[in-house]
Amino acid sequence: MTRTAGDLANFLGARLVGDPHVRISGVANPESARESDVIYVDAPKFAERAKSSAARCAIAHAGVQIAGKTILENRDPKLAFAKAAGWLLPRTRPAPGFHPTAIVASTARLANDIHVGPYVVIEDDVEIGAGSAIEAFCFLGKGSRIGENSWLHPRVTLYPGARLGDEVEIHSGTIIGSDGFGYVYGEGKHWKFPQLGGVEIENGVEIGANTTIDRGSLETTRIREGAKIDNLVQIAHNVEIGQHTVVAAQTGISGSSKLGERVIVGGQVGIADHCTLEDDAIAGAQAGIPSGKTIRRGQMVWGTPARPIEKFKHQYGWFSRLPELAERVRKLEEGKGAK
Amino acid sequence: MTRTAGDLANFLGARLVGDPHVRISGVANPESARESDVIYVDAPKFAERAKSSAARCAIAHAGVQIAGKTILENRDPKLAFAKAAGWLLPRTRPAPGFHPTAIVASTARLANDIHVGPYVVIEDDVEIGAGSAIEAFCFLGKGSRIGENSWLHPRVTLYPGARLGDEVEIHSGTIIGSDGFGYVYGEGKHWKFPQLGGVEIENGVEIGANTTIDRGSLETTRIREGAKIDNLVQIAHNVEIGQHTVVAAQTGISGSSKLGERVIVGGQVGIADHCTLEDDAIAGAQAGIPSGKTIRRGQMVWGTPARPIEKFKHQYGWFSRLPELAERVRKLEEGKGAK
Amino acid sequence: MTRTAGDLANFLGARLVGDPHVRISGVANPESARESDVIYVDAPKFAERAKSSAARCAIAHAGVQIAGKTILENRDPKLAFAKAAGWLLPRTRPAPGFHPTAIVASTARLANDIHVGPYVVIEDDVEIGAGSAIEAFCFLGKGSRIGENSWLHPRVTLYPGARLGDEVEIHSGTIIGSDGFGYVYGEGKHWKFPQLGGVEIENGVEIGANTTIDRGSLETTRIREGAKIDNLVQIAHNVEIGQHTVVAAQTGISGSSKLGERVIVGGQVGIADHCTLEDDAIAGAQAGIPSGKTIRRGQMVWGTPARPIEKFKHQYGWFSRLPELAERVRKLEEGKGAK
Repeated sequence: MTRTAGDLANFLGARLVGDPHVRISGVANPESARESDVIYVDAPKFAERAKSSAARCAIAHAGVQIAGKTILENRDPKLAFAKAAGWLLPRTRPAPGFHPTAIVASTARLANDIHVGPYVVIEDDVEIGAGSAIEAFCFLGKGSRIGENSWLHPRVTLYPGARLGDEVEIHSGTIIGSDGFGYVYGEGKHWKFPQLGGVEIENGVEIGANTTIDRGSLETTRIREGAKIDNLVQIAHNVEIGQHTVVAAQTGISGSSKLGERVIVGGQVGIADHCTLEDDAIAGAQAGIPSGKTIRRGQMVWGTPARPIEKFKHQYGWFSRLPELAERVRKLEEGKGAK
Repeated sequence: MTRTAGDLANFLGARLVGDPHVRISGVANPESARESDVIYVDAPKFAERAKSSAARCAIAHAGVQIAGKTILENRDPKLAFAKAAGWLLPRTRPAPGFHPTAIVASTARLANDIHVGPYVVIEDDVEIGAGSAIEAFCFLGKGSRIGENSWLHPRVTLYPGARLGDEVEIHSGTIIGSDGFGYVYGEGKHWKFPQLGGVEIENGVEIGANTTIDRGSLETTRIREGAKIDNLVQIAHNVEIGQHTVVAAQTGISGSSKLGERVIVGGQVGIADHCTLEDDAIAGAQAGIPSGKTIRRGQMVWGTPARPIEKFKHQYGWFSRLPELAERVRKLEEGKGAK
Repeated sequence: MTRTAGDLANFLGARLVGDPHVRISGVANPESARESDVIYVDAPKFAERAKSSAARCAIAHAGVQIAGKTILENRDPKLAFAKAAGWLLPRTRPAPGFHPTAIVASTARLANDIHVGPYVVIEDDVEIGAGSAIEAFCFLGKGSRIGENSWLHPRVTLYPGARLGDEVEIHSGTIIGSDGFGYVYGEGKHWKFPQLGGVEIENGVEIGANTTIDRGSLETTRIREGAKIDNLVQIAHNVEIGQHTVVAAQTGISGSSKLGERVIVGGQVGIADHCTLEDDAIAGAQAGIPSGKTIRRGQMVWGTPARPIEKFKHQYGWFSRLPELAERVRKLEEGKGAK
């Protein structure tokens, strides 16, 4: 199917300046773009790179002009570019069909048009909604549930009873619903605290590779609509992650902590148990939030133990000048001694 | 099978105050409990929550009274609750049987009553003891050994020669016996240092999901009896973890470090190579213990580089007041200048 | 095949002092060595341990003498020991052959002498070069490519289009080519930024267990020749790792960061996006390198935010003495007040 800059302008609702008949077929960086790739320009340095690009169509802020290029004007060129990519190159789940090597329990309730890849194991009472794709080596434990149009890449494990909504995407190697880490020490050994709770992944959540999300102990671990979780993240029992919250790679969130909506958590952050991060809070990379702390709405924190970032930077600035401060104290002492 | 509060009192050796005929079938939090669930109360705030719970039976300290509830008195209600959960809702490994898709080498020595799930691969000379369960997609490399009543959840990898004791439980995605990370640089490249040692996981150890435990280089990596390891933990070659030691998620323990008994390691802790953590030592979350350090028996440390926690907190308190201290120094300088 | 100390001396080009007819068959630590094991001595404390070792042959610096032992003199005994281990006990990939349960697309182009283990899935247009071994449960997505003499341990996932060179070794559970973590927020939700780029792993790279390496977004993620990556490492989209660079466990490298040649990155290091680590730079364990920073050639950094290690240690020394410094300021204030 042939598409033009004009078609994309229509799709994006963007004003077109230039030739609407320019043919487009993909998206790219300015440097690697072919003639038919769309690029985007959202900063002056990008404009410089765009000038020498082979691309004939660019998404840019209103008023930007690049010689020889058709411009689609948009207030948020990067967002429009992401939408354009989804439109030009839709991500397609593997085609419907059941591979003959898939082992499917007779009690499973599966929509007809799903994809079930080779060597998938689907246990009793599993439910899968229309349009979903389950790739090779996935293990869907007893009673687990997947909604519509969801996509499990190869080698995802759902422990029994895990529940996933619609348009959930989970990358390879990720484990949903493993036992939480809870023990009670007594009589010289650790006794397992019951890990009987559920785990629910709501609509539109995407989870990266080799991440682990534990089931609740007596409650439910919950990842709410539209949240995005990166690779190698650890989410403990009873944690709740709010809508459209973003958690970067290798972050760990301990038992019963609650994150609000649109929270942003950097990489390798450690959030201890029973913390609260209110809506729109931000935790900088490697921050450590001690047990029971609350980070207020919209507040950005950094450091271990975490504190408001301006405070941290101010204190850290003085940390950097400590040797100099110590020297000043020494001089004061000398001065006093000299008197 | 119907069970009563009286039966549970007998099992726990607890004194019962109230109606011994109350029927019980499960455990729960006060809020989610049904009538037949047992709850526990080990702090005043729990008592408040228990009052409005539907549960009719609660485990509590001696003397605690909650209107309408049968109390099982115990010195450690949370421990008794954990035991009650194990008694009421025993965790059952998958039933014995060999799935026809399991590939089992003829030289493997397997007890009769084990569970071997779909698409399991068992190589030559593997040994598995009575009552163990090996779930789907597990890979048991040549000569690996699993004791009795152990449980491997789906997708566990044992490299050749890995040895597991009795009542070991390993969660999905965990790797036991991968090569350690050891190289010698010379002539412009890295040469692999031999990674030929063993890995032994003793009785009663539980290991979380997507954790990695490397084999020894020339020695043996050893996790001793009753130790508990969380998700996404890295344990390097030649490490020894003592009995009943607990290691929380995303902690990394580098080559040849030795942890004693009942050590507690928080989440995201980094322990460099050749460290010693003596019995009952505690490392707070995100602590970093430099190469070769010894943490003394019972000592709690925090920070990077790690130090005794009181010291760290004291120093950190001054770090927080650094801008103020700097201001005081400035004033002293002014005062001096003014003279 | 019987080998002697003389044969090994020839192989290593080492001068032999003692009996060249001593038979050797393996390598070991001094303590666990049998008579026929070779040991190495590269420090005085090792010499002490070597004296009481059963081993009859030791690699050591010129001039070292140990009663009753044949010495192979070498300038770098540990390097020579690593080479000796590779020569005496060559690491052998599983023997060539296709397991009947492997599912191989008809369009795949595979060399004849490769090993393909049980339950391997090889999709369309995959290419595998001579001598490579693909162990159980590996998933090779459409169009992925593996060179010659490479070794994928059980349960490695290659996303479509991932490219691996020759003599690459990847340990169990590792994921190559998963989507990068990139979204654009707008209209109340996160839109996926295109993750369409490639991932290339060059010759001689070894990657540990449960590591994740994302494909590029619009560029290519690249691990260059001879680099060594440990377990549970996260490498984000568009990252480049230079030749012979070493990255220890649980380190995370964010989008578009570039590491030069022979860089050494300790465990649990966090490198934010768009950083540059020039050739031979060193980042100490748990260091945190903020977004966009450059670490100069050969520089060693530590701490978060990372700084040159001497500076960090100097500042940290004063951090440790902060309570004492504060006391000195208090005394100065008192002195002033007393005047």
